[in-house]
Amino acid sequence: MNRPAKKSLITLLTDFGHKDHYVGTMKGVILSINPAANIIDLCHEIDQGDIDAAAFALSAAYRYFANGTIHVVVVDPSVGSARRALAVKTKDYYFVAPDNGVLSPIFRNERDMRVFHLTNKEYMLPETSFTFHGRDVFAPMAAYLSTGIAIAKLGNPVDDFVISRPTEPHLKGNMIIGQVVYTDRFGNLVTNIDKSYLMDVEEIRLDHIRLKGIVDYYSQVEEGAAAALVGSHGNLEICIRNGNAATSLNVQKGDPVEVFSSRSVVQQS
Amino acid sequence: MNRPAKKSLITLLTDFGHKDHYVGTMKGVILSINPAANIIDLCHEIDQGDIDAAAFALSAAYRYFANGTIHVVVVDPSVGSARRALAVKTKDYYFVAPDNGVLSPIFRNERDMRVFHLTNKEYMLPETSFTFHGRDVFAPMAAYLSTGIAIAKLGNPVDDFVISRPTEPHLKGNMIIGQVVYTDRFGNLVTNIDKSYLMDVEEIRLDHIRLKGIVDYYSQVEEGAAAALVGSHGNLEICIRNGNAATSLNVQKGDPVEVFSSRSVVQQS
Amino acid sequence: MNRPAKKSLITLLTDFGHKDHYVGTMKGVILSINPAANIIDLCHEIDQGDIDAAAFALSAAYRYFANGTIHVVVVDPSVGSARRALAVKTKDYYFVAPDNGVLSPIFRNERDMRVFHLTNKEYMLPETSFTFHGRDVFAPMAAYLSTGIAIAKLGNPVDDFVISRPTEPHLKGNMIIGQVVYTDRFGNLVTNIDKSYLMDVEEIRLDHIRLKGIVDYYSQVEEGAAAALVGSHGNLEICIRNGNAATSLNVQKGDPVEVFSSRSVVQQS
Repeated sequence: MNRPAKKSLITLLTDFGHKDHYVGTMKGVILSINPAANIIDLCHEIDQGDIDAAAFALSAAYRYFANGTIHVVVVDPSVGSARRALAVKTKDYYFVAPDNGVLSPIFRNERDMRVFHLTNKEYMLPETSFTFHGRDVFAPMAAYLSTGIAIAKLGNPVDDFVISRPTEPHLKGNMIIGQVVYTDRFGNLVTNIDKSYLMDVEEIRLDHIRLKGIVDYYSQVEEGAAAALVGSHGNLEICIRNGNAATSLNVQKGDPVEVFSSRSVVQQS
Repeated sequence: MNRPAKKSLITLLTDFGHKDHYVGTMKGVILSINPAANIIDLCHEIDQGDIDAAAFALSAAYRYFANGTIHVVVVDPSVGSARRALAVKTKDYYFVAPDNGVLSPIFRNERDMRVFHLTNKEYMLPETSFTFHGRDVFAPMAAYLSTGIAIAKLGNPVDDFVISRPTEPHLKGNMIIGQVVYTDRFGNLVTNIDKSYLMDVEEIRLDHIRLKGIVDYYSQVEEGAAAALVGSHGNLEICIRNGNAATSLNVQKGDPVEVFSSRSVVQQS
Repeated sequence: MNRPAKKSLITLLTDFGHKDHYVGTMKGVILSINPAANIIDLCHEIDQGDIDAAAFALSAAYRYFANGTIHVVVVDPSVGSARRALAVKTKDYYFVAPDNGVLSPIFRNERDMRVFHLTNKEYMLPETSFTFHGRDVFAPMAAYLSTGIAIAKLGNPVDDFVISRPTEPHLKGNMIIGQVVYTDRFGNLVTNIDKSYLMDVEEIRLDHIRLKGIVDYYSQVEEGAAAALVGSHGNLEICIRNGNAATSLNVQKGDPVEVFSSRSVVQQS
């Protein structure tokens, strides 16, 4: 396995946080196998075991990387159990992750997919722990992929991988009922309501909050005021200017958001 | 725009934190434009919208990077509004940041400056959001700069950029009245009193605290004791050995610090 | 000192956190000296001045990096005092750190060691502060090492460096009395009881907790239940599935952990 180093881009998305050496150790493993790999941290502060949040972050970020990038996700509450480790090749990207639904947005959106169950111990560390597959399985698999090893060598093709159902908003006449799907560092409340639904919006309701229409950017409202806008993910977001909507409004993931338009939002087909 | 990759150093200084994918996504954008860029995190835990803290961090760090480094700052509470995005070329460095005063230390200290308002959409992402110019404007502009695009191609020269006034200490006879301008992770209180003022110091006063003279290093005082010393920024700092001066002394940015010397500190001119 | 850039791997392990520019500034210094250095963050959230935690992280991670890697540790509560700065060359690695015991695991485990007191000001920054040797001493020393400067040029050989005593478990008949030596982000309690001791385990006691035997992986027990397993460091760990053992069980570093086996654990020799 003495292969020439290859300048590949590998991203890491984990719930390992920054308190420990875990992410650093994964990088050591990757660079030992491919010293020319360029490793980028996508995010490591996913809440412990929060598969939905990891899927959200991956979904929002992965397309901004160049074709050929290898995206590694290690949010893996069932590490060590029979849950499978996967590698996926799509038209433009590679993904390496546990088979727990964290790749659902990829499975829904990408084309020309090939999915493999990672079983070839030749491409794992010699001793694999039951608790740190990030180091022992996912990092080396991604590193070998980055050296040009064919994905089919890493394991067996599968087609029964885990896909979670997306949370789609409900449409009823001139009303859209969506929900908060993510809250970010700033306390911005990201909903599952795509901007394509936001035509002729009259009012947005979230708990006791009533917002008249949609603004373009945060500083269009007064300091401390709530506002609705289309966020960087292309979805409706509720925010508080220079404040934290999640804590101030006491809103959590899953809480409903209602949008009222001046005309029907149900498409005729 | 198919240009050869160039090994450029780009630093990122933001208030995006580590909870989300935002910094990772900016890096994806940069590396898609210049795969050979070397991206270094200067700091991402600036408090939300704290322009002063970002200016302090930039000011403290930027000169330690090699000539030619591109420093990107995205602390941008008015993102999406009419506030301008800037690129600056100085004798030794490039800077890319919003026009909100965050580059004030650069404007005050650097020479041979040229400042441009970033308007050329050719060097932004095709779709620019109103809320994430880090991804859509600042990252691509910095990346194109790093490939060797001339800065003048990115926009129009301007000379009416925002500069905040520095907080200078007041000198009165043998007394210097400064203030706390930054508190770091360890709770060390960085003041705006330059070490050049610290001759024949007899006493330092901070709220009810009285410190006799200045020590060289933390462990010169007892565990838990407060001390005054010249910190790594070249300014007077108040600290507590193996403790946190900010929380223990309940001191905040802007609080006054008085230094009494045995002779006049007012320079004759 | 105009030497060709060399692709060396340098890791950084500090207690500088992420709030400030400190780590970024160290990277600026390193890359100014060796633009081709590949700098990897091992961890920066070591508790302020926690030498044991830094030694633990270093010990757990360093072997996963390729031979020749330069590991830099800056957890340095006595910075500026007479405590020495060291560079160490072992058979496979380099280490740069203060002489305060943080390299104890290296001194105990590595072979063919040469240890140097870093005194050569030619390889420090021109002005060295009393409070930020990470920037002024450790970063430049590591960077010069990475360019191929011989370690013996950096200072004088020493053999009286600080080594802390390891905390070894006590063995008594069929009982092992160890202790918690580290708690990680997830609240997992890492003990000093090596897996080689864990034969025929009947019960594990930690405060009022009694655990029957050892499981392989977290999800073998119910949500919220405590479990004992061999963690990724090869030691006994106590965890709570999808929970936080450290906070839920109110356990801290140094707390005792007792393991009872069905046969004597004391080796005959």
